[in-house]
Amino acid sequence: MGDEMATIFSRIIDGELPCAKVYEDDLVFAFMDAGQVNPGHVLVVTKKPYETLMDADEESAAAMMRAACRIAKAVQAAFNPDGMTILQSNKAAGWQTVPHLHLHVVPRYHGDGADLIWPRKEPGMEKLLEYAAKIGMT
Amino acid sequence: MGDEMATIFSRIIDGELPCAKVYEDDLVFAFMDAGQVNPGHVLVVTKKPYETLMDADEESAAAMMRAACRIAKAVQAAFNPDGMTILQSNKAAGWQTVPHLHLHVVPRYHGDGADLIWPRKEPGMEKLLEYAAKIGMT
Repeated sequence: MGDEMATIFSRIIDGELPCAKVYEDDLVFAFMDAGQVNPGHVLVVTKKPYETLMDADEESAAAMMRAACRIAKAVQAAFNPDGMTILQSNKAAGWQTVPHLHLHVVPRYHGDGADLIWPRKEPGMEKLLEYAAKIGMT
Repeated sequence: MGDEMATIFSRIIDGELPCAKVYEDDLVFAFMDAGQVNPGHVLVVTKKPYETLMDADEESAAAMMRAACRIAKAVQAAFNPDGMTILQSNKAAGWQTVPHLHLHVVPRYHGDGADLIWPRKEPGMEKLLEYAAKIGMT
């Protein structure tokens, strides 16, 4: 994805491109994803055109999930799905397709055809402590 | 999943069960997931034992992503992955396995074996506007 795609979300926020708007505040803008996994699938986009969560200020990141919480409750009330998946993808390897920070609020149903292949290994506590030390936040 | 699983995260937060702690503030607690998709995979758990995002207060939800932003930056610096995926799952149909509100911060690599099956339909603007009106936040 090049800069051309990045500007699509900015142009939606600026009103240059049409969208089905859902919510807006000082930091984020939300609208129906043109490609719906299930009816009620919403995108929450930061107004600041960060590429990824690793570039973002913490308050914009927090605002995305604050909005997602409100939106998930409203989508639950409107569509009564069996579940809800929040996905926030960064870089192609992390499943990002548009290089402008955003998250998906996706109402989910048993047997809706979506699936997650998510192989996990259990390295044990010694390795986990090593990883935590490497992250180095405590 | 029953209440027995819910208490695992609460017991980790309370220090009754061991973990490799990564981060803590007033609203959330983060530690290495015992089942690592890739090394550096962190769970961020709300201190309040909500089951899902639809039950949560907005500030706890926001705090999860504020922490995820800090953690994603630290994981990026420590492990230098190709990408990063944030996943927050609600109810079994939404891929939740432990009924205590949490999100995953997962460093990602090209060809790491994880995959997302995510079929999308394009219903067109008229339907999207109908969905947005049904959600009813604007």
